[in-house]
Amino acid sequence: MLQKISMDQDNFLSIWKNLASKVDTHLSTCLQPQDGMPVRLLEAMRYSVLAPGKRLRPILVLLASNAFGFENTNPWPAACAVEFIHAYSLIHDDLPAMDDDDLRRGRPTCHKVYGEALAILAGDALLTKAFEVLAKSYPALAGAECCLELAKGAGASGMVGGQVEDLAWEGKPGVRGEDHPKEPTVKHLKNLHDRKTGALIRSSLKLGAIVSFASQNRKPPEDLLQILDNYGQNIGLAFQVTDDLLDVLGKCESAGKRVGKDAQKGKLTYPGLLGIEQSKLLAGELCKNAQHLASQLGPNAAPLMDLADYLVSRDH
Amino acid sequence: MLQKISMDQDNFLSIWKNLASKVDTHLSTCLQPQDGMPVRLLEAMRYSVLAPGKRLRPILVLLASNAFGFENTNPWPAACAVEFIHAYSLIHDDLPAMDDDDLRRGRPTCHKVYGEALAILAGDALLTKAFEVLAKSYPALAGAECCLELAKGAGASGMVGGQVEDLAWEGKPGVRGEDHPKEPTVKHLKNLHDRKTGALIRSSLKLGAIVSFASQNRKPPEDLLQILDNYGQNIGLAFQVTDDLLDVLGKCESAGKRVGKDAQKGKLTYPGLLGIEQSKLLAGELCKNAQHLASQLGPNAAPLMDLADYLVSRDH
Repeated sequence: MLQKISMDQDNFLSIWKNLASKVDTHLSTCLQPQDGMPVRLLEAMRYSVLAPGKRLRPILVLLASNAFGFENTNPWPAACAVEFIHAYSLIHDDLPAMDDDDLRRGRPTCHKVYGEALAILAGDALLTKAFEVLAKSYPALAGAECCLELAKGAGASGMVGGQVEDLAWEGKPGVRGEDHPKEPTVKHLKNLHDRKTGALIRSSLKLGAIVSFASQNRKPPEDLLQILDNYGQNIGLAFQVTDDLLDVLGKCESAGKRVGKDAQKGKLTYPGLLGIEQSKLLAGELCKNAQHLASQLGPNAAPLMDLADYLVSRDH
Repeated sequence: MLQKISMDQDNFLSIWKNLASKVDTHLSTCLQPQDGMPVRLLEAMRYSVLAPGKRLRPILVLLASNAFGFENTNPWPAACAVEFIHAYSLIHDDLPAMDDDDLRRGRPTCHKVYGEALAILAGDALLTKAFEVLAKSYPALAGAECCLELAKGAGASGMVGGQVEDLAWEGKPGVRGEDHPKEPTVKHLKNLHDRKTGALIRSSLKLGAIVSFASQNRKPPEDLLQILDNYGQNIGLAFQVTDDLLDVLGKCESAGKRVGKDAQKGKLTYPGLLGIEQSKLLAGELCKNAQHLASQLGPNAAPLMDLADYLVSRDH
């Protein structure tokens, strides 16, 4: 069980690190040898999932589930599921046919270590594993609801759709349809990220609510889900704007990947479209919106306010 | 609703074709434009799913759900879900980093038409869509159970694990672990196919049972699931042995792909290990086992007996 996170803990970052370390333990427990599972496949899955990372999405599950104050909530399987989806998306995004990245979280990418074939399959296995964990860990009502929410967030209208859109703007062959707009606007960029990173972030928060209310044998009320969704939309964009800023301004060491690679590849970014100062202002505004929304969830949601702050002020 | 399939229909192939055409209609209905779904992504998904195909796995869902004789069963979402998984696995298997195939079901493969990046993402989207369809189409109990069964069949211990094993025997770089056996035996090959093709076939049958009993608000009894699982194991292997035989003996036109490509690539096959005559005998034996198992399910399961026959006698 997640311990109650109280407002008066003075160091949000230490709470974060503590939670992230517990998430890592659960992730590792979820990825153990099983009958019929090839050793090298499990290795590749573990290599990618257990690479040092922020664990943002699992922590959103934890903080959202905590916001409602119910005892006996078990947010861990949902927390693992969203990280499996995130990890799979990174493996596939890094492939030569996609972003062609050699470095991720400061280490060689999955296909650099295990080859492209196994990297593709490790991604597929993690994507599938996310649904297995949800379906087997919760009462049927919550399990089915979590699967549906995650599938929508991760699928063709959500995260995968956003990635396609990103590649389309990059001019990747075969991806851009004939009626695709030629010149990107900030609206296009927001829409893209609202899916590419935002959709899974929003799903993570809603999964937290679903598993929390499942402990009371009921579904979360629609208005609470809507607040979490809006909060997620704001921090999702804030997170992306900050990522883009870090790519321009950051140091290779703290970003754990090559700096300036977005511009180098002609990637569509907020600093590229808005300039650095306007991008910083946008991040601040999104953070404020998010905090206002989180405040409507009551005192147990205070860490969600701290998290919004942290996301735009981080340096990696 | 699936109409009652009666034993006295004299032409199993015409039943099959009729069901496959209904499956196609449902597949197409499941893959319609949605908010946020890029046009080209949907195109790539539809291109692969709606390519001419046998629809074996959906038909297994239909025949298994029909075997129990309950009215008001809705097998279609489950039938679509297993075909989405199958279609995604073909897209990813055909990629240059995997089997590197240009032709599939007589048409250019997905990555040949849409590029590698979109092909990878269309596969990811279809895999995700399978769980969405299951989670949203059934009462929670059956929905969660279907998601769990499908995830196990399609994941690291099932279909994906089998594909990894297949690549390992092929000597694909990075895939074979250090303690991997050097010389393949028939046992290794059976074990490989029991996962690569068998696992999804077994899941399809069990999904049929789950959605059928869901119409009665209950779970299928364990012994019935076990019979379906064993039946699936036998027809799965029979199907693969026949596929291997068709690759050696078949014509390019009827196979819809290049003939002799397995041998050309050093793929592990039954004719390669056992010889052609022994492989034919094995297929016949597996067919008999399957029929014996299906006979235990009662008269409504007769089409499952016909299907076993058809799978080993087909010429494409």
